[in-house]
Amino acid sequence: MEIKLRPIAYVQNDRKEAIDDNWEPIISIIELAEDIPETALEGMEGFSHFEIIFYMNQVKDEKAVPQYRHPRNNPNLPKLGTFAQRNKSRPNKLGLTTVELIKREGKRIWVKYLDAIHGTPVLDIKPVLKAFEPKSSIRQAAWVDEIMDKYWSS
Amino acid sequence: MEIKLRPIAYVQNDRKEAIDDNWEPIISIIELAEDIPETALEGMEGFSHFEIIFYMNQVKDEKAVPQYRHPRNNPNLPKLGTFAQRNKSRPNKLGLTTVELIKREGKRIWVKYLDAIHGTPVLDIKPVLKAFEPKSSIRQAAWVDEIMDKYWSS
Repeated sequence: MEIKLRPIAYVQNDRKEAIDDNWEPIISIIELAEDIPETALEGMEGFSHFEIIFYMNQVKDEKAVPQYRHPRNNPNLPKLGTFAQRNKSRPNKLGLTTVELIKREGKRIWVKYLDAIHGTPVLDIKPVLKAFEPKSSIRQAAWVDEIMDKYWSS
Repeated sequence: MEIKLRPIAYVQNDRKEAIDDNWEPIISIIELAEDIPETALEGMEGFSHFEIIFYMNQVKDEKAVPQYRHPRNNPNLPKLGTFAQRNKSRPNKLGLTTVELIKREGKRIWVKYLDAIHGTPVLDIKPVLKAFEPKSSIRQAAWVDEIMDKYWSS
């Protein structure tokens, strides 16, 4: 089965290359594609957070395969499969991040905490609803804190 | 730009039709596609929650367009754009839900709180990391509580 999708918007920001860390200072504009009307954004102000699904089009096809490797290629960390990691080299090249909405104006929204580089195509935007939050506390592998240490701020 | 994706797994469960409510009792199996090796799931036990991105292939193409309508077609609620709603009639037909991992066995995982019907193709699976949780409290429109009242349990 082949699934064909189209960008509904594009990311604009100052991060031109994929760098792992220090995303917090980056403010991104998400601008709707030409064929998506402004009314698609109507009512977003009712919500503080949105989930952005994006397509990491700069990932090379030969890297977009199932992985079984050390996170960040650090041999001190256990080898993990693709679906136990969030790194960008993965089948379908999909990225997903929860952002804070700063403002909306015409066909554009301004958001914080989006870890997508300039020019990235966006596939969907969904409001965060409390009913979809985890219903139990989050448990993560012990080494995650270490690799995420500088992800947002340096 | 056209983006071509392939299912990395499929959903198996007892929900054969798209119904809006009462998803909590549904336990789903997510089974990897033939071309995805079992090692892609290695290490998932280190995490309690996963985000599942799926393709709602039963949504008719003519409904997969930008919407501007009352949530659940209830005229008492304000009209909203596609990206201020999570309903299934949306461009690209993408679904996204945070699930709890119950167990892993071979090429299959068992999960709770997945609101996808039987046969749904899965496009990605990502572990929930604490660093990606919202960094401020979630605010949502006042009417959301009402429409989500029976979403999980009846």
